[in-house]
Amino acid sequence: MGNMLSVKPARPGWLLLASVLVLAVAGCRPPSAAQPAPPAAEAGATTAPADAARADPLPSWRTGANKQAIIDYVQAATTGGGPGFVPPEARFAIFDNDGTLWAEQPIVQLEFVGTRIAAMAKEKPELAANPAVKALLAKDTAFFQGKDGEKHAMQLLALSSTGMSPDEYAREVEAFFATTRHPTLGVPYRQTTYQPMLELLGYLRANGFETWIGSGGGIDFMRPISGPFYGIPPQQVIGSSGQYDVSLVDGKVAVLKAARLGAVNDHEGKVAGVLAHAGKVPVFVAGNVRSGGDIAQLAYSQASPYPSFQLLVNHDDGEREFAYGEADGASLAAAKAGRWHVVSIRNDWERVFPEPGP
Amino acid sequence: MGNMLSVKPARPGWLLLASVLVLAVAGCRPPSAAQPAPPAAEAGATTAPADAARADPLPSWRTGANKQAIIDYVQAATTGGGPGFVPPEARFAIFDNDGTLWAEQPIVQLEFVGTRIAAMAKEKPELAANPAVKALLAKDTAFFQGKDGEKHAMQLLALSSTGMSPDEYAREVEAFFATTRHPTLGVPYRQTTYQPMLELLGYLRANGFETWIGSGGGIDFMRPISGPFYGIPPQQVIGSSGQYDVSLVDGKVAVLKAARLGAVNDHEGKVAGVLAHAGKVPVFVAGNVRSGGDIAQLAYSQASPYPSFQLLVNHDDGEREFAYGEADGASLAAAKAGRWHVVSIRNDWERVFPEPGP
Repeated sequence: MGNMLSVKPARPGWLLLASVLVLAVAGCRPPSAAQPAPPAAEAGATTAPADAARADPLPSWRTGANKQAIIDYVQAATTGGGPGFVPPEARFAIFDNDGTLWAEQPIVQLEFVGTRIAAMAKEKPELAANPAVKALLAKDTAFFQGKDGEKHAMQLLALSSTGMSPDEYAREVEAFFATTRHPTLGVPYRQTTYQPMLELLGYLRANGFETWIGSGGGIDFMRPISGPFYGIPPQQVIGSSGQYDVSLVDGKVAVLKAARLGAVNDHEGKVAGVLAHAGKVPVFVAGNVRSGGDIAQLAYSQASPYPSFQLLVNHDDGEREFAYGEADGASLAAAKAGRWHVVSIRNDWERVFPEPGP
Repeated sequence: MGNMLSVKPARPGWLLLASVLVLAVAGCRPPSAAQPAPPAAEAGATTAPADAARADPLPSWRTGANKQAIIDYVQAATTGGGPGFVPPEARFAIFDNDGTLWAEQPIVQLEFVGTRIAAMAKEKPELAANPAVKALLAKDTAFFQGKDGEKHAMQLLALSSTGMSPDEYAREVEAFFATTRHPTLGVPYRQTTYQPMLELLGYLRANGFETWIGSGGGIDFMRPISGPFYGIPPQQVIGSSGQYDVSLVDGKVAVLKAARLGAVNDHEGKVAGVLAHAGKVPVFVAGNVRSGGDIAQLAYSQASPYPSFQLLVNHDDGEREFAYGEADGASLAAAKAGRWHVVSIRNDWERVFPEPGP
């Protein structure tokens, strides 16, 4: 077993992000080796071809109760007239991102923010006079754990994007993913997605499920990579957001990212996000054990009139991934009470990370 | 020509809605006859079968420059290698609802609110002590035109939905559409949708376009009928919104509509709505001449790197529909400057309303 990090429940989401940045900077034991596999599907495509689905739709999942439960659920959902049938228009699956679709040690978006702000401070040295920037550049973890930690983290998030057009911001995100590697795994972030979950996304799509992301991360940060990494188009990504300044001058629309916070898509906020964006109840939800942020979204699927499936990833593999849990055990307790499926990375996944892409 | 109603530009959206309620109550000349046609497609289906598309994809549109421009645009958008090609993932079309997909004299949602509140006041007579309720029941138009008109209109909107679950609210909306008829046309509201626009939605879908609604109307009001009326699934409906109260108690999620305003999806707010929900720029936008509320959304499509199409419906047919315009002429001026296509209901549409359904 690896070391266990205890992350306290924290709200709203950005405080959580800041805490985890700090914990990540404070040091996780690096896994022994990254285990790679093929790249994800493109947006709109269904990954699992019919032949593969007949063979083994989830080759990176080890034979066991969880793999069998997923396959049983999907087979029943697509068997017309059976007791587990889910009509096509209700086949709506939603996945958390950090710690559920990709590794979250450290939080990728905060690495991006750190990289952006370091670059900005190089161009504008006066920025280093800002206490939050100074603390970030000095990796002063105590600063962000102090009483104004959340305020400072949000200030950095705003500083890294305010005044950019959504398009400029998307180009910066793409450049980050094209050039930056995970600090301890040493691979591009695309290879820190979870191969078993990529297979699960493809398997669900091949069986007529819409696959969505519902994450505490930034919606504008995830959308540029949700297609290439996961095969999920931008309109199926729900996340935390800032507001926009929109102006119409001489018949031309200009949009800039504003410093005002929009939605905080975490905890109960994830349910509000699903209602606002999708307007329907999911029947398949995947989240992970970390600060209880996915409990509400997972529980919400049990409000569906159709059979539903709840999948909770437990980070118990310090050798191949990262080992960490919750101080209060809220997610595992909710899983037990709700009869959700707790996936052990150590036991349920034959392979954790995908092969390097072409 | 029928009578011309001048509607002043007004913001935010609910003020506009309230003004139009008042104008509608004050009396539009009823059209001579409703002209009906077949019902719309179900959600997810493409209406125009290949054979019909080869014949005439838009039979209710009269031969002329506008019909030809639509067909030319769609043919070019789907011709690989040509100068007008639009890649499938960018084929994103968005339609205003009130006055663009269905008649807006009166505003349907305000009829719903009026009906709801009249029913509530019957059950709870003490409600009539509320000045806004009293004015609504007495059709006191001056009350809503006064200085607190907007506040009172919003109060009524909140009163008609606060504390309901999204599901309860949807059932109320469905019951309204099943039982209520248009006050002057005398038909169910489904038959006050525009047949030429139903054909256009089907034609676009048959050519690989996603069709969305981007309306100042309430998102929770439109979603229950967007599938049956227009073939548009709930996640492709953008509108004005209230916030939700979400609670998680003993593992169960409960959601209630709150009195707090969410997004106002009108004017520049429509662009923010498109960014939040779709995360991409539309290439085909349809709106109508009324208070300039669609100008920003129409203009936004011209920010696309691909060829785009702007369609502006002008309500100039007092015989078959309703005749009204704008005091300041802003929408027509924007259309001229931007080279948008102005559709005359009188000249461009052979048939206005669909046949009664089965």
